[in-house]
Amino acid sequence: MNPLDPAALRQGNRLALSRALTAVENGDPAGQDLISALFPHTGDAHLIGVTGAPGTGKSTLVNQLARALRKDAKTGEQLKIAIIAVDPTSPFTGGALLGDRIRMQDLTGDSGIFIRSMASRGALGGLAHSTAAFTTLLDGAGFDLILIETVGAGQAEVDIAQLAHTVIVVEAPGLGDDIQAIKAGILEIADILVVNKSDQPGAENTVRALSAMLSMAQGGGSLPLASKHLRQSQPGHAKSAEPIPGWQTPVQSVIATEGQGIADLVKAIQAHGDYLRQTGLWQVKEAQRLEKDLQSLIQDKVMQDWQKSVDPDRYTKTLEDLIQRKLSPMAALQLLT
Amino acid sequence: MNPLDPAALRQGNRLALSRALTAVENGDPAGQDLISALFPHTGDAHLIGVTGAPGTGKSTLVNQLARALRKDAKTGEQLKIAIIAVDPTSPFTGGALLGDRIRMQDLTGDSGIFIRSMASRGALGGLAHSTAAFTTLLDGAGFDLILIETVGAGQAEVDIAQLAHTVIVVEAPGLGDDIQAIKAGILEIADILVVNKSDQPGAENTVRALSAMLSMAQGGGSLPLASKHLRQSQPGHAKSAEPIPGWQTPVQSVIATEGQGIADLVKAIQAHGDYLRQTGLWQVKEAQRLEKDLQSLIQDKVMQDWQKSVDPDRYTKTLEDLIQRKLSPMAALQLLT
Repeated sequence: MNPLDPAALRQGNRLALSRALTAVENGDPAGQDLISALFPHTGDAHLIGVTGAPGTGKSTLVNQLARALRKDAKTGEQLKIAIIAVDPTSPFTGGALLGDRIRMQDLTGDSGIFIRSMASRGALGGLAHSTAAFTTLLDGAGFDLILIETVGAGQAEVDIAQLAHTVIVVEAPGLGDDIQAIKAGILEIADILVVNKSDQPGAENTVRALSAMLSMAQGGGSLPLASKHLRQSQPGHAKSAEPIPGWQTPVQSVIATEGQGIADLVKAIQAHGDYLRQTGLWQVKEAQRLEKDLQSLIQDKVMQDWQKSVDPDRYTKTLEDLIQRKLSPMAALQLLT
Repeated sequence: MNPLDPAALRQGNRLALSRALTAVENGDPAGQDLISALFPHTGDAHLIGVTGAPGTGKSTLVNQLARALRKDAKTGEQLKIAIIAVDPTSPFTGGALLGDRIRMQDLTGDSGIFIRSMASRGALGGLAHSTAAFTTLLDGAGFDLILIETVGAGQAEVDIAQLAHTVIVVEAPGLGDDIQAIKAGILEIADILVVNKSDQPGAENTVRALSAMLSMAQGGGSLPLASKHLRQSQPGHAKSAEPIPGWQTPVQSVIATEGQGIADLVKAIQAHGDYLRQTGLWQVKEAQRLEKDLQSLIQDKVMQDWQKSVDPDRYTKTLEDLIQRKLSPMAALQLLT
């Protein structure tokens, strides 16, 4: 068996899948060939982003969700679930120090759940591009639901919002004042809000505060529900915002460690999936995601082309003049492009 | 007075400074001209990054630090301090909902401290580039120390590490298991570790755990102290890592709300600044920072050039074929570049 054979992936061979993901992660051209081969078979998987600050218990929640989502509520069929854990442990070494081991232990024995950690590297194209490639492979390999877990703060959240069909934002009571400030941004990307650890002190306040902010935003208050669903094809431009009609972001109380509230959360996820399909927003999100990924590929490519075109000696000399402040950054730019 | 006149900035005019920062933030070409004019006068400010997870009390710490750093310990001179608060409230709207108001209140009346919030936008070039431009303006306007505060998770931390001379990572006791996982990555970028809220339960354990991880890393254990200090000029490439000799990252216990431990933290910051100057690493870091910023300018420029070169109809058609899965992402890329 050739481990980078698309047929092996389509047949559900796990070794083939692991190797394919590694090839993609390492920028191996064979990985890109695989993506091209599988691409016509993609577009069916439901991509679910799960984000939240450290300490909210995201990983436990994702584990519980994966198990609960295994059985399709309507058909009773067994679904195939993948988890991509974007691991913030080390942007430099690319290591996922703990994630894999801990989680694999927990879910061992269920061959319908595949788990992969991924480093959130500081690379060009970065997280968004690698995650997009991973989801394409997993989608092409026949996974029905793909859970993408990240630590939420700034760019990572934006990336998830642009990648996933359904974005779940996880909160927990009592994480301090900074959390309050982050919520305003989080409301804009959440399709479902989860208050985990809902048996802890302050949980009711957290639910109430989130619900109040949501109703303010959805009632046309001062918090704009922007950038959630949008469509525009303009080369290389961020997309303009357009509010989504009809979906009321629910706030769900959960105790992930005990499995409480998970069944209701699964229902909310399925309801959001149905909603997207019925309104045609599924296709809109797919289109956004593919355009975003294309933009990221283009960005990598034009930078590579620039690197090939620039004379290394000229680059070194210009950089030296910049460092000695003989040239301003803009003047240096003009000499190099 | 022309508010975008470099002379007004150099004279410490606050209105001029505010307008200049806004011009830079909005991508106004006048902002770039200002940066070019001020650039020869920059390079003296000590850039101090302060990062940490939500709930660690970073903002309070930064406020206390700004006050404590005002008076130079050696000369007794009054120093000018700037704070750039990179605000995660809303990556989409670009809004800094709370930050400015709360902090300004606290520090009002001290004209030697200038505070500016900045949105962590999802834009191309993004945080790194805007923050670099802000620091150049503030440096050129004569600020001696510039504190850059961000929420730490993934990319933002990496950006800070590449921008600041001194990186302070703030922890707090009892923020849950995810924090533990993040620490491994944080050790790689921290020049000074702070355990804030050190009167809370678990503080001693946090200090002990961090110290143990540090001594493991610095003793050549399994955690590589990579990417902290490096130097290589290769067009468009991430820099390779090289361990720093001689600096022992201290772990400092602080209660920011009460000002406890702040004086010692100030000493540690000054010691790190002295260390960088004495070893020549100050220049190394300056060079890295300028190269990083140049790379970011180049990336923006080559993408703009690509946008101008591509036929919009061809782009739209290619994107449609991609969305209908008639073309793979790589095939679409080849048609557009």
